[in-house]
Amino acid sequence: MKALRYFGPRDIRCESMDDPRLESDRDAIIKVDRCGICGSDLHIYHGQGFSEDIGFCVGHEAVGEVVETGRGVHGLRVGDKVMISAAVGCGACPSCLAGNVANCEVGGGACYGLSARLQGCQAEAVRVPAADINARKIPEGLSLDQALMLTDSLATAWFGCRNADIAPGRSVAIVGLGPIGLMAVECAKLMGASLIYGIDPVASRRNLAAELGAVPLDPLTALDTVKEATQGRMVDSVVEAVGSDPAIHLALRLARRRGAVSVIGVNQDKRFDFPMGRAFGMGLTFRIGTCSVPEEWPALIPLIQSGRLRPERFISHTMALTEGEAAYALFDARADGALKMVLQP
Amino acid sequence: MKALRYFGPRDIRCESMDDPRLESDRDAIIKVDRCGICGSDLHIYHGQGFSEDIGFCVGHEAVGEVVETGRGVHGLRVGDKVMISAAVGCGACPSCLAGNVANCEVGGGACYGLSARLQGCQAEAVRVPAADINARKIPEGLSLDQALMLTDSLATAWFGCRNADIAPGRSVAIVGLGPIGLMAVECAKLMGASLIYGIDPVASRRNLAAELGAVPLDPLTALDTVKEATQGRMVDSVVEAVGSDPAIHLALRLARRRGAVSVIGVNQDKRFDFPMGRAFGMGLTFRIGTCSVPEEWPALIPLIQSGRLRPERFISHTMALTEGEAAYALFDARADGALKMVLQP
Amino acid sequence: MKALRYFGPRDIRCESMDDPRLESDRDAIIKVDRCGICGSDLHIYHGQGFSEDIGFCVGHEAVGEVVETGRGVHGLRVGDKVMISAAVGCGACPSCLAGNVANCEVGGGACYGLSARLQGCQAEAVRVPAADINARKIPEGLSLDQALMLTDSLATAWFGCRNADIAPGRSVAIVGLGPIGLMAVECAKLMGASLIYGIDPVASRRNLAAELGAVPLDPLTALDTVKEATQGRMVDSVVEAVGSDPAIHLALRLARRRGAVSVIGVNQDKRFDFPMGRAFGMGLTFRIGTCSVPEEWPALIPLIQSGRLRPERFISHTMALTEGEAAYALFDARADGALKMVLQP
Amino acid sequence: MKALRYFGPRDIRCESMDDPRLESDRDAIIKVDRCGICGSDLHIYHGQGFSEDIGFCVGHEAVGEVVETGRGVHGLRVGDKVMISAAVGCGACPSCLAGNVANCEVGGGACYGLSARLQGCQAEAVRVPAADINARKIPEGLSLDQALMLTDSLATAWFGCRNADIAPGRSVAIVGLGPIGLMAVECAKLMGASLIYGIDPVASRRNLAAELGAVPLDPLTALDTVKEATQGRMVDSVVEAVGSDPAIHLALRLARRRGAVSVIGVNQDKRFDFPMGRAFGMGLTFRIGTCSVPEEWPALIPLIQSGRLRPERFISHTMALTEGEAAYALFDARADGALKMVLQP
Repeated sequence: MKALRYFGPRDIRCESMDDPRLESDRDAIIKVDRCGICGSDLHIYHGQGFSEDIGFCVGHEAVGEVVETGRGVHGLRVGDKVMISAAVGCGACPSCLAGNVANCEVGGGACYGLSARLQGCQAEAVRVPAADINARKIPEGLSLDQALMLTDSLATAWFGCRNADIAPGRSVAIVGLGPIGLMAVECAKLMGASLIYGIDPVASRRNLAAELGAVPLDPLTALDTVKEATQGRMVDSVVEAVGSDPAIHLALRLARRRGAVSVIGVNQDKRFDFPMGRAFGMGLTFRIGTCSVPEEWPALIPLIQSGRLRPERFISHTMALTEGEAAYALFDARADGALKMVLQP
Repeated sequence: MKALRYFGPRDIRCESMDDPRLESDRDAIIKVDRCGICGSDLHIYHGQGFSEDIGFCVGHEAVGEVVETGRGVHGLRVGDKVMISAAVGCGACPSCLAGNVANCEVGGGACYGLSARLQGCQAEAVRVPAADINARKIPEGLSLDQALMLTDSLATAWFGCRNADIAPGRSVAIVGLGPIGLMAVECAKLMGASLIYGIDPVASRRNLAAELGAVPLDPLTALDTVKEATQGRMVDSVVEAVGSDPAIHLALRLARRRGAVSVIGVNQDKRFDFPMGRAFGMGLTFRIGTCSVPEEWPALIPLIQSGRLRPERFISHTMALTEGEAAYALFDARADGALKMVLQP
Repeated sequence: MKALRYFGPRDIRCESMDDPRLESDRDAIIKVDRCGICGSDLHIYHGQGFSEDIGFCVGHEAVGEVVETGRGVHGLRVGDKVMISAAVGCGACPSCLAGNVANCEVGGGACYGLSARLQGCQAEAVRVPAADINARKIPEGLSLDQALMLTDSLATAWFGCRNADIAPGRSVAIVGLGPIGLMAVECAKLMGASLIYGIDPVASRRNLAAELGAVPLDPLTALDTVKEATQGRMVDSVVEAVGSDPAIHLALRLARRRGAVSVIGVNQDKRFDFPMGRAFGMGLTFRIGTCSVPEEWPALIPLIQSGRLRPERFISHTMALTEGEAAYALFDARADGALKMVLQP
Repeated sequence: MKALRYFGPRDIRCESMDDPRLESDRDAIIKVDRCGICGSDLHIYHGQGFSEDIGFCVGHEAVGEVVETGRGVHGLRVGDKVMISAAVGCGACPSCLAGNVANCEVGGGACYGLSARLQGCQAEAVRVPAADINARKIPEGLSLDQALMLTDSLATAWFGCRNADIAPGRSVAIVGLGPIGLMAVECAKLMGASLIYGIDPVASRRNLAAELGAVPLDPLTALDTVKEATQGRMVDSVVEAVGSDPAIHLALRLARRRGAVSVIGVNQDKRFDFPMGRAFGMGLTFRIGTCSVPEEWPALIPLIQSGRLRPERFISHTMALTEGEAAYALFDARADGALKMVLQP
């Protein structure tokens, strides 16, 4: 089949590779209808990925059709349209049985497309392990594009907002307005935020945030503006959706006493200069991590079904899988209004 | 001064009575700018009040200006514009100190205008006990009308929604679309409800609910419609804002397994036929009661300030205090689109 | 095989019946090592069961050994010692996948031994549907007796305490001191209750509660005693573990303003005289229902492993399955200090 | 009056200073019956305090008798025995009115005995601002010593455990077994922890933790031991009660995936090397700060009254105020089994 494969920094190409095959009774093979490029795929693209492997298929966001199932799969049938969780659990340990796959006690933290260990889904087909847990039939009323947003990015934005203790009446700052940050603006609003600051150096992204109801701010002036507007109280909840050290530092400065800071941007720093004394004086809560995607679905699915969330509008480009190389370049350059990039095999 | 006084069923008149005077160092006298008529005032109007007293001043919703304070009042000054909490606490017991005045261990459940014990505020002036706790300076950016809605009705609607465990993604039914029920629709939406059913026998009120985004239903067909629409699952959260037995029965039938039913309509039944066996099978949560008004203010104030909640739009009539008799009759008849009735001394 | 079968009121006998067989790929057959008689089995014993069937096998609490599995079972192997959840889910709907089997959208409320629909487990063997969800390997360090208590009664006591909003520092009343009520005393203590009242008409059961640290009270004097001891404040959390109307009425009177009342006793009343007006004035929370057993296991298993909970001490009798008839009579008469009755095939 | 005053590093002496006087209508003067030396007083003792002032009175833990009140104080009377909150709020802002004095919007973070701004309470008398909020009559049934422990250290231990998300069934590690750490062991047990590791380099303190039911560990081997005992899962909740960088690093290593780390030890580091990449992979929650003392009282008071918490047993020495210099030296040296040091004027 055709697949986007990693051959080195800025060298992801659409090449042939072996078709995926069932490796266990609980696997399913999914023919991919649509797959997405995620901001965290750019880490790999830049050669700052999570493995030394070469040639593996990348990508961890996809929807498609079941074409084959192992004998131990009972919730899915050939022909079902499914959405695949970017987080992968064993499906048998207590954590997974309770829906918390990111906390899987067996394969903790597994994800498609990070190495040759589990091939990615920017391809014509993908193998899903423990398919009853890691994929789900697309619920009635959801389009393929909407379901695709549920496989990772919308779920992550939602999780990041929950981790920031956003609640009705609270004020919020979102640091970073890529697709996930913009969706975090939407999520914060839906959770009842009274006021949302949207912070990004790119003016076009700030404009999008403003259209969603956020107060747009440039990172350079954000701190002073928020300080003045709140008479020094700062904001209740901060979501960092960048992953860079400066962005986390800004997030920590934006939070009020007893405020909460939630980091969902991928950060691999081993020695971040954490302002411990100040955090002690302020009484901060700091949360960081990735989400157990299906755990967020029960809240998100009805919100999409009823039209209150419309994540598909953050899709800026839909291209052919064979154009994947160009799609990565475009996304990396933030060119042409690139937000969510979708590929079709 | 002039005041609306209760002289018997359907006999509330604007008459003279003694001006209020400080009775304790912690009291304040407030010159009333605006006061509201609440649905629960109709219980008194119908002669089904909470005391045998005659001649007392009615009403428990008001905003106004501080004209005199006792020496023990330190948070308010003469000239301050304030909103008065409909729930009244002693301000000194542990519950009150923590903001939970409805749970006051001294004067538990005290309220203006229920008897001669504490005169009401549909008058030119009112005495506020423990004024530091029971009144608050109107926050910057709030109009008098907005502040008036915070003194009772919006706070009650919000509390009722919280008691129904409304959370992002949940489905909701609001039974009863008077001013509080309509505000509950607004609150449920702001708390992230995916879908809201608004149920009332009066078509004009259903239309208002529909404008707010609810699915309007007549009580006669509500059960069947919800059953079909949800394939028998019913809704996650139900708020009852009527107070009648049939409305509570309907609310109990609308909730799904493990759903929550919240009653904020005033109900004085001593022997309600509770379907215990069915509730056991369904695993219901049932909450009932009145709110500690100031407890709800920290969430509500910023939502009004930022424009996300606009409770003043539920004010249908603003009349003179001297027209109080006519205002009660109009409100009781639900005539002329009567929703929130506001009186100005 | 031998099994306890229901032939009419007070007529449960150990008779032969067909061995259970796999009916689906996801079933498992468990050879029963130990099974328990539950207080709710007495409803069936008294002829007030949940079906008109005759001859079905009763019982819903058992541990044993896997002797056969369908091809779709992947978490259990022949030879595994397992505990079987009294609550039974389909294992495939979203509720079940999240661990909430009592909320199963397919077979909602299914339970062993209530009718011929799903044969009970007071037998030599039992068929477990969706075995990956409805049974679990007994965790390291747990005895068979401890595991047996986890299949229903301890989980129910725990759930009942959670539903009463018990938290560190709160005062608690447990109404009914059968095995589940006594375990609720233990659970409330472990959840940090400052003070626990144990209420039962049977002196020996009150004595057991007192040994566990509760203040023992007779139902006849409980209300006055609590009123005096708390200067009228009453208690924060009440758990009703009887199921009778008078016990629920007592529970409702024992709760303080904004208190919580949790009913876990099985009650099938269609018209319980609920004191609605009083509940409104008090601002009560009322919860009722049965538990999703495996949902409670993550908290309970480590507490038994570390010795903080020792539910096996509530086992008063261990008898042979063939003595089941006598065991039922003994338990029904509360004779011979009967608490938890265990049967061994 | 006599008071312990700071004159420089390791130079705290009992000297005369002016008696405190009312500075506002809302102040009260308290004649000190007993005061405590806190671990954080050692920072000042070591010359690493929070101000450049010289000669100010130190100490922030005291109980005593009201000897004078301003006219605006209504909850306290001359002769009342009171406990004084170590955290000091203005008593008028919304945060304070809700009980959250550490979040006071006016005097945020004020505390006795940190500078000349607010004189300490290791003295014969102390002025308490906003006395209705910052002091409370000692509840019935509490001894002076028990009340003294509520003014800071027990409240802090409790707060630290809450911040670590300790809940029934969770495993816990307490890093640092000074008086607050040992009390955290007690609190964690009361909150239902299944297993508690107590970690300290001092053997005598480990022994005390073991007597309280903890598994004692030396910091040097703690990580490996916990790793092995939990098969690599680590613990659910970690409380750091030291304040040093190595202790926080250890705490961060001890937490499991999605675990919570709570820091209550005073740390003033500006550039702590936070392992951001690892925290991201683990999905940690990190909380740090000081407690709003009176906020913790509603849970703690009944637990002491009923005998479930006995914080007075952590008092190792009761000495005269005039022996304060020796008491500091003893405490600093951890000599003679020094834990909680109490001084009597």
